[in-house]
Parts: sequence; structure tokens; C-alpha cells
Amino acid sequence: MAPQYAPSLRSRLAPMLLVLQLGFILIYAFYIEIESNVKVYGITFSNLYPEFQDVNVMVILGFGYMCTFLVRYGFSGAGFNLLVAVIATQWAIILNGIENWYYRGKIRIDLKSLVVAEMCAASALISIGVVLGKTNPVHLILIALLEVSGFVLNEWLLQTLLKVPPLNSIMLLHIFAAFFGLMLTRILYRKGSEQPFEKEKVDRKTGLFSILGTLFLCVFWPSFNSVLVDNHTPGRRLGAVLSTYLALAVSAVTAAAVSSLSSPEGKLNPIHLQSCMLAGGVSIGVSMPAVHQPWEAMTIGFTAAVVSTIGFRYLKSHMLLAFKCHDTCAVLSTHGLPGLLGWLAHLLLQIKDCDDHTAAMRFAVFHICSLFITISLSLCMGIITGLLLKWNFWRPPQDKKCFDDQAFWEFPHLAVQK
Amino acid sequence: MAPQYAPSLRSRLAPMLLVLQLGFILIYAFYIEIESNVKVYGITFSNLYPEFQDVNVMVILGFGYMCTFLVRYGFSGAGFNLLVAVIATQWAIILNGIENWYYRGKIRIDLKSLVVAEMCAASALISIGVVLGKTNPVHLILIALLEVSGFVLNEWLLQTLLKVPPLNSIMLLHIFAAFFGLMLTRILYRKGSEQPFEKEKVDRKTGLFSILGTLFLCVFWPSFNSVLVDNHTPGRRLGAVLSTYLALAVSAVTAAAVSSLSSPEGKLNPIHLQSCMLAGGVSIGVSMPAVHQPWEAMTIGFTAAVVSTIGFRYLKSHMLLAFKCHDTCAVLSTHGLPGLLGWLAHLLLQIKDCDDHTAAMRFAVFHICSLFITISLSLCMGIITGLLLKWNFWRPPQDKKCFDDQAFWEFPHLAVQK
Amino acid sequence: MAPQYAPSLRSRLAPMLLVLQLGFILIYAFYIEIESNVKVYGITFSNLYPEFQDVNVMVILGFGYMCTFLVRYGFSGAGFNLLVAVIATQWAIILNGIENWYYRGKIRIDLKSLVVAEMCAASALISIGVVLGKTNPVHLILIALLEVSGFVLNEWLLQTLLKVPPLNSIMLLHIFAAFFGLMLTRILYRKGSEQPFEKEKVDRKTGLFSILGTLFLCVFWPSFNSVLVDNHTPGRRLGAVLSTYLALAVSAVTAAAVSSLSSPEGKLNPIHLQSCMLAGGVSIGVSMPAVHQPWEAMTIGFTAAVVSTIGFRYLKSHMLLAFKCHDTCAVLSTHGLPGLLGWLAHLLLQIKDCDDHTAAMRFAVFHICSLFITISLSLCMGIITGLLLKWNFWRPPQDKKCFDDQAFWEFPHLAVQK
Repeated sequence: MAPQYAPSLRSRLAPMLLVLQLGFILIYAFYIEIESNVKVYGITFSNLYPEFQDVNVMVILGFGYMCTFLVRYGFSGAGFNLLVAVIATQWAIILNGIENWYYRGKIRIDLKSLVVAEMCAASALISIGVVLGKTNPVHLILIALLEVSGFVLNEWLLQTLLKVPPLNSIMLLHIFAAFFGLMLTRILYRKGSEQPFEKEKVDRKTGLFSILGTLFLCVFWPSFNSVLVDNHTPGRRLGAVLSTYLALAVSAVTAAAVSSLSSPEGKLNPIHLQSCMLAGGVSIGVSMPAVHQPWEAMTIGFTAAVVSTIGFRYLKSHMLLAFKCHDTCAVLSTHGLPGLLGWLAHLLLQIKDCDDHTAAMRFAVFHICSLFITISLSLCMGIITGLLLKWNFWRPPQDKKCFDDQAFWEFPHLAVQK
Repeated sequence: MAPQYAPSLRSRLAPMLLVLQLGFILIYAFYIEIESNVKVYGITFSNLYPEFQDVNVMVILGFGYMCTFLVRYGFSGAGFNLLVAVIATQWAIILNGIENWYYRGKIRIDLKSLVVAEMCAASALISIGVVLGKTNPVHLILIALLEVSGFVLNEWLLQTLLKVPPLNSIMLLHIFAAFFGLMLTRILYRKGSEQPFEKEKVDRKTGLFSILGTLFLCVFWPSFNSVLVDNHTPGRRLGAVLSTYLALAVSAVTAAAVSSLSSPEGKLNPIHLQSCMLAGGVSIGVSMPAVHQPWEAMTIGFTAAVVSTIGFRYLKSHMLLAFKCHDTCAVLSTHGLPGLLGWLAHLLLQIKDCDDHTAAMRFAVFHICSLFITISLSLCMGIITGLLLKWNFWRPPQDKKCFDDQAFWEFPHLAVQK
Repeated sequence: MAPQYAPSLRSRLAPMLLVLQLGFILIYAFYIEIESNVKVYGITFSNLYPEFQDVNVMVILGFGYMCTFLVRYGFSGAGFNLLVAVIATQWAIILNGIENWYYRGKIRIDLKSLVVAEMCAASALISIGVVLGKTNPVHLILIALLEVSGFVLNEWLLQTLLKVPPLNSIMLLHIFAAFFGLMLTRILYRKGSEQPFEKEKVDRKTGLFSILGTLFLCVFWPSFNSVLVDNHTPGRRLGAVLSTYLALAVSAVTAAAVSSLSSPEGKLNPIHLQSCMLAGGVSIGVSMPAVHQPWEAMTIGFTAAVVSTIGFRYLKSHMLLAFKCHDTCAVLSTHGLPGLLGWLAHLLLQIKDCDDHTAAMRFAVFHICSLFITISLSLCMGIITGLLLKWNFWRPPQDKKCFDDQAFWEFPHLAVQK
């Protein structure tokens, strides 16, 4: 049993999962009940259900299969994503309901609570993309718990201190997750990562699985951006769907153009296309409340794809060499930069719409503060999480076992019988 | 044309399919018409349609791709699943409408009939999972026809004799299908199956396809359990969705924990995770009518995953060696045991809710009878079907051709041209 | 840099995409706004949204993954499909709104505009299936622009000259796309294509991806056919869904039967099953307005599958040898012949329903004219597009680089890092 075997997680993973899950069941038993008044906020079950399912598909299938691109890490990509998603969702339901619990003694959940919790889970899934392949599932669960806690805290701070509407603060998930992940990977930096890892490769088939996941994200992104838009002003939801669709369409085209332009042989890079297409959805999501015209959405999608593709092409290796941030899924270019861009677009569009100078100034100050709080908190939480994860108690995989399913999964190539 | 070729199905499969299909068309021509009164039971088309589509995705994509895990049997897994699904659905529409036809001379179908028929088809798809790879498509079609007939008969018996509500009786499909399949595989037992078949293997890529199918099932399972819940008591549907989601989430986490705990090296087994995750959905489906609190659903999901993982790890080979039941997809652990568990949970929760002793006793007697009828009928139908299938007229594949696409599919590796 | 490298598209693809995309943004900025009156035609957002998403899944995931069957052309299959889909949709939104713009100065878009535009995009996606693998992305974009223009022109002609209702004229997309594509591939014929291309092959895994795409199409086809059926006569939409489901089910069974019957060893062909299953959806789509009984839909599905399977088995190579039409995805058998069959079924059923002779004659004349216009226009547009594409300026791939991802994509097999 020399170091060529990855350390066994039996005494870490199983107890952790069981304790966590039984703890959740206990908390749910005492504090959580299902909302019986089904017409809250004018949204009925039937109105929300299809969009909830779309978000669910994105979280479980979309993010999961997007992470299967590594040639020997497919089971981990899809499997750990699922594990993190369901744990983070259960945890987020509890955290989001704390205020409710404080005032009423009980947390009432309905479909909207579940959607919001899944979005918080999505922020954790984005963060684990940064450290994909270099961590074990115990790490990932810790990341999920801490990231979601940080994100919910951030939301609460923004809503309490700056009166940011819930929809706006939740859309900052892309920025929060990206900076959290970057700080985390900085602290977890492994010496020698400047050289590509031996197994950090894609092949044709895993590439196709990954494209499948990305396309799920793209197709259902309009639901992700519109599901929380309230129904009182009826056109808003339609606007959100159309804007998101157009932004994604434009960013796909632009990503292809920039990818081909920045390649010496004029070829496209499948990973660019995937990541940078999503950039449009990210930035339109963040800037949604201020977007009213199709062309605004399209321009945002265009800029996001340009920024993201260039970021992917030039920034990724730079981040690794200069800042020692090894970002497996290029989350900085896919979620970080486009998120910032969306934030900026929101600022500019809102200022343009303001009638008087004072309101514009006021909005700008609040908007800048909210970004500042989000980034600070995400970096802090990233540092805390990173330091916790450096503890050898969690048995990190050796460098040689990074990006390898065999460290965590039983005989993927053998008979089903056993 | 020595025995190294699988027997040609030309003179069996094609006539059977044509006769069956033309027969269905004739029956539909004389007896079936589309419901013109679109507001039946207060459920409008738009309310039901998204959930119908979710069930449809589960039946066609979910079950189909879950069965692609065998390395050389992917086309058959997905293709025969489709064939069986559409035949079973058409057949179930007819059978479910017999009563209607008896009283009104015509069978009126609407979206709900289609959903119910797809659920009956799902029960056939579960059964064929047991014999996956050891049968030919002619067998599978016979299984589908007989299994659906048995299941609809069972439903009718339960509703007529014991006044079991339709929703409860339909959810027994998991139990019916599992025991039907087990009896079938017992009778179709091939000598020498104690040794794993040569081609009964998974590889990385087929594993990923299979995970994809499983995730489709998971993501849309809330629709499967809630689609038939009526809309009159508006909170019920929301409750069904949330309970199913939570049960699935808990069972995924628990399955991972138990899988890691029961492995000597603390590794996870992808097939465990897949099957045992579904266990939560199965048992919550069966116990749904009595589940009112989130923690009840979570506890059921937890127990189901524990039972199912342990069943998978220890019972599967035991079933093979002791009872000569070769259960390819481990349907006993995925649907059988969790179904029984759900039945038990329903019993206990309902008794707990009963105010007086008499009502509880009465319910218990009826509940036990309904299980007894279901299991007896499923075993009987399994025996009948098994004996019919043993007839060599149907040209079963040789042992060497089991789990092999080449017995049934043309040149999967050659040019498209031909 | 001898001819063994595919010509670089840097100076063609990137400028073309950028100019196109910036042009679209400009047009949208000046002429397009989001519909603010959300209750148009009695269809609310929530009623239409789930079906819009289904169509979206079909266009992006369904067509995309159906085209991944070629063993070395998977990235191109899925990637270029996406590119063409989003460009064609943006373009179709503009073209469909021209009339609106003419009368009101602005084009107002809502969810229905997007659905219609995606259907126009679907017609382009069908056409590019014919030339799949033998063109570069620049070609595909030109095809998309011209095909969509032709299709919208055709729709306008039919509606203006013959008063064909919009739903009927849009469903002719299958016929238009098939004949457009055939004429195109006739003109782009490469010498030596009688021999299969070296890389025009499928393997097990790419076959499974392709089946996945096809199943997406099948599962959501009911939405494709019903989404534009108006809600005023409430039963119509239910009828469209049930008819499409039944036609697809029947055609799947029939395709399997005919495929097995026409194979010397009685085996099934996965590609037959895929294409011919869709045939049912195509022909029921075209004949939808006249189908009122389930058995009519089933008979249409049955006939379509027979015609399509036989067409696939015998016509495809004949088309290649006799007419020099190299039809990669067998679009003639999948969309062309079943479309014509659906047209014929529409004619016959409508005549049967007519009370008096004059109305029947009148309908027949109009119906034949509409087919005549559609086919003529599609052939003309095919010729124009083909001649434009023959221009070497667009740098077509050499014969050796056909059906190969490496001509267009960067290192699909190398490390992610770069």
C-alpha cells in the first residue's frame, strides 16, 4: 500500500455524509414545513413549475456534464457535482429560512424556496469548477457548505445594509463564486502546477459530453434568469427570457469569431465556444434589472463573449504563472469577468435611465458598495475555506492522482457483477 | 452459418411488429377518439402538459439511457427501450380504456390517459431491465404486452375489490415490475450464469451515458410522482414535488455514504450511486399519499438508500447463487426493496394519522391485502411470461451472443452509406 | 504548409461572423422592441413558455446531437449546428417582422416570434444535414441565411397569393428544406463521392450520441407540432399533441419492422430507426390541420415509416449514383418523402371532410399550387445558394479533410491548458 494508491476516504467521507445528512433531517424535522398557502406573491404552482424544472436540469445535468470534459475524470465530474448540488440545496434552504425561523419559529418552504436554494447551490457548483480534479469529495462538501454560507450571508448583508432587491443580489452569485474559487485555488496551489497535469486532458467523446452539459445550460438559461422575476409586471418575465436568449445567441456567434481570430490557424476551440457562450448568459443575468431593449442585451452578450474569449486565451495561463491560480474550468473568464461586465452594464444603463443627478449618484454609490462587499466577502470566505482545506486531515489526493477517477471510484472498467 | 451467428429474427420480429401495429391501428380506428371536453377534473391542458413532457422524457430518454451501461449493448439498451415503451404505451391506452369502452362504446383519450399509459409502460421498462442483454426484442415485446396486461389487471382488482385510489394502485408499479422481472429471470435462468458473462461490462463512456439516463430520471422524478395528484387540494401537488425532491437528495447523499462505507478501500461505486439514488424516488412514490412533512420524506429517502445500497452490495450475488435470479440492472434493489419499504412507510404513517383504532386496523388489512394481491399477481404473470418465453420458437440469443449489439444490429462500426 | 492542411478560415469566418453579428445588433437597435402587451391572441406567457423551451431543446440539442454520428465530426456536428441555429433565428426574427415594420415602423417581438423564428432555423438545420461534413462553417452560414430568406419568402407568397394559414405554410419547412438541400448537394457534388469518404463512419459511442439527439427530437416533437396551434378552439392543441405522439410511436415500431424485414440477416439498422422514426413526426406535422382521429395519425405514421425506411435502404445510394446527390443525413427519406406524404394525406383527408364538390376542388387546386410554389422556390434557392457556394473564395475543405473535425477545431485531443 505504497503511495501509488490514493488515500482511502472511508473514514472521512462516509461519516461526514452521514452526520451531515442526519443533521439535516433533524433540523428539517423540527423547523421546516411545507407552505400550505399556495398562492404566494401571485405565482401559482403551475406557473413556476416548468421553470423550476429547467433550473433543476441546469443544476444537476448542465453543471454536472459540463464538468465531464476531463478524459479520466468523468464519473467524478458528474457524480460529485450531484452530491454537492443536493447537499448545498438542503443547506441553502435552511440558511435562507433563518430569518423566517427567527420571526415565526418555523421555516415554510415552497417551490420558490427550492429555486432560490438551487441557485445558491449553483454558486457552489461554479466554485468547485475552479478546483475540479485537484480535490477530493470531502473537500468539495466543505467548500459547498462554506461557500453557500458565505453567499447567503452576502445576500443578507446586501439586503439589510444596502436594500438591494433579492433578485439583484442573487444574480451576483457568478461574481461571488468566481472570486471565492480563485482565492481558494490560490491557497490550495500545488507546486509544479505550471506544468499541465498528466491527466488534465480532453478527448473527443468526453468533449461531446461536456458540450452536452453546456448546451443544457444554454438552452435553459432563460429560465434561470427569469424564474425569480415577479409576475406583477407581466412583461418583465418575457423581457428576461428574450434578453437572455438574444444575449446567448450573440455571445455564441461572437465567441466563435474571436476564437477563430485569435488562433494562428483560424481554428475554433471547443472549450472557448463552450465557456464564452455562457459568458453572455452570466452578464445578462447580472445586468437584467436594467436591460429593457433587445439591442442592449445583444451588446452585453457581444462584449461578454469578447472579454471572456480573450480572457480565456491569454489570461488563464497568466493567472497560473503570475498569480499561481490554477483554474481548471476557467471560471474567471466564464463567470468572473462577464459577471463584472454585467455589473458595469447594470450601473451604466441604470444611470442612463435616471432622471436626476442625485438618484444616479445614489444608485452608483450603492451599486459600487454592493460589488465591494460581495468581492471582499467572497475573498475572505475563500481564504477561510482554503486554509481549512489545507489541513491534511482531509487526505487530499496526491499530485499523481489528480484528475483521476480511480482515486475515488470502484473499478469503472470491470464487470457490473461486483 | 454455423452457431457463431445469432439466429436471424427476420421471420419473427418483423411480422410480429407489423401484425401488432396494424392491430393497434384497427382497434384505435374503431374504439378510440380524442376527448373533446378539455376541462376534465379541473386540470387544463396547459397545467398538465409540462409534467406530461417530463414523464415522457423519463420513459424514453431516462430509462433508455440508463440501460446503455453495458459496453457492447448500448444500441440495444436505448433502442429496444424505445420500442418497448411505445408498444406498451399504445397497449396500455387500450387496456385502461376497457371499462370506458364497456359503458360508453368508445374510449376517450386525453393527456391524462397518455400519462397513465406511459406509467404502465414504465413498469414494463423496469421489468425488462432484469433480463437486459439475455433476451431478444421479440421476447421484450412479449414481456411488455403481458406485463402491462398484468399490471392493468392488478390495478383493476385493487380498485374494484379494495377500493384503492387509482394514484395509490398505480404507484405499486415498482413492486409489481420488480417481482414480475425476478420471477421471469428465475425461469429464464441460463446454466453457467454464476460466472459473469463475457461481455457484461461497463466502460467509462458507457458509464457516463448511463449516468446521464439516471440523472434524467432523478431530475424529472418529482413530475412522475406529482403528475397524477389531483389539483383540487392545491397544496398536495407542491407537497409531492418537494417531498420527492428531498427524498431523492437525501438518498443520493446516503447512497454515497453507504457505498463508501461498504467498500474496503472507501471508494464509491458509480452503479450504486445510480441505482440507490433512484431508490429514494421509488419509496417516496409508493408512500406519497401518507407523507405530509419534509422530514418524513427525507427519512424515507434515507432508509431506502441504505436498504438499496446494502441490497446491491450483498444481495445481488446472493440472488444469483442461491435463487438463480440473474438481475442485470439490480431491479430488486432499485425498485423492489425500496417499493416494499415505501409500502411499509405508507402503512405506518397512515396508522399514525388515524384517529381511532378501527380505522387503523381497517386500513392495515386493506393495505396488506393490496400488497398481497400485487405480489401474487406479479409472480403469476412472471411465471406465465417466463414459460412462454422459454419456447425456442422465439429464437433466444446464444449465451455467447448475450450482451452484444451485433446479434441484433447491422454493422454499427461501418460506413453510414450502406 | 502543403495541401495536407485544411485552408485556414481565419480571414473568412471571423470577419463574416463579426460583420453579421454587429449588423444584427444595429438592426435590432433601430427596429426591434419587446412586445409590452403580453396577452396577444389569448396565449399568455406561462401557457407558451414550456412549449417554447421544448422547441428550443429540439433546435439546439436535438438537431445538434443528431448530427454527431460521424466518428470524427462530432464537435462540428454539434458546434456548427448551434452557430447556424442562433444566426438563423436572429435573421428569421428580422425577416418575419418585415411586414410589421412596413406598417408600424417597428418590429415587436414576443415569445411567439421567437418560436416561429426557431422553426425557420430548424428548416436551415435540416438543409445543412444534407451537406454535413462536406462544407465549412462559412458555407453553412451562407446556407442558413439564404435558406431562411427563401423559406420566409415562400411563407409570404403562400399567405399572400393562396391565403394559406400561417401554421400550414410553416409546416412545409420539411419539404422546403429537403429539396433545397438536395439541389444544393447536387451542385456541390464532388467527383469521386460514389465511393464512401474515408472518414464517413459511425462508431458505437458516436452512434449513442446521435440516438440521444434523435430521442430529444422525438420526445419534444409534440410540442413542435402543437406550439403554434391557437388556443381558441381548446381541443385542437390536445389533438395535435396526441396525434403527434401516436404517429411517432407507430412510426418507430414500423421502422423497426421494415428495417428488419429489408435486411438479409433480419437485423435492425440504428440509423434507419432514427431517421424513420422522425418520418412520422414530419408527416403528421404537415398533415396536422386535417387530422382529427387518432387512427388517421397512426396510419400516416405507419405509411411515413414504410416510405422512409424503404427510401433510406434503396433510394439513398440511387440518388448518389444516378443523380449525384450525396445526402449525408438522408434528409430526402427523413424529411422530403414523409413531408410529401403528409401533404398528400392533408389533401385526401381535407377532401374527404368537404361537404360539396366545389369546395373540395378549390382546396385541391390551392393545395397543389402551394406545393408547387414551395418546391419550385426551394429548388431555385438551392441552385442560387449552390452556385454561390461553389466560389473558391469560401475555401471549401479538400476531399481528404471532409468529415474531419481537425480542419476546423483546435487540438481536440490535447491538454485543456492551451
